[in-house]
Amino acid sequence: MQFVVRIEIKLKESILDPQGQAVRGGLTSLGYKNVVDVHVGKYLELLIEGSKEQDEVERQVEEMCQRLLANPVIEDYSFQVESAGGIG
Amino acid sequence: MQFVVRIEIKLKESILDPQGQAVRGGLTSLGYKNVVDVHVGKYLELLIEGSKEQDEVERQVEEMCQRLLANPVIEDYSFQVESAGGIG
Repeated sequence: MQFVVRIEIKLKESILDPQGQAVRGGLTSLGYKNVVDVHVGKYLELLIEGSKEQDEVERQVEEMCQRLLANPVIEDYSFQVESAGGIG
Repeated sequence: MQFVVRIEIKLKESILDPQGQAVRGGLTSLGYKNVVDVHVGKYLELLIEGSKEQDEVERQVEEMCQRLLANPVIEDYSFQVESAGGIG
């Protein structure tokens, strides 16, 4: 089986996001004055292969986020696991 | 009306992604040997306010991606616009 995992990681609401502020400033100066808030984060796409079941893959991705991909102290993350077919 | 826009930006398939390779290497050395491919990109969340309709907001976000948020030469992007309520 193959799984495509899409992970979104962003700073927690309480953490200052200067990159988001800069993007918001850029959008405002281009005339998009109706953009009132911007958060910038990371997007990861993983391709996972093997004989695992979907719930097992979800547990593994949760662990990857905690151990390597995100910084749980300052970041929130969410992900979707989608089966991409292949020989099980 | 308020809209929450979630934008995922990643390098086109044909472009080398050394950051993704590095993350894959990190995951492999942590024992996640079933991760066969990793792509790293950007994730943006915008909060848009005003009297625009959803399709108008979508057109505007498409324009923002083309002009500022993404580099259409080397990056692909996709986004979802979601109504967050508020006084229309």
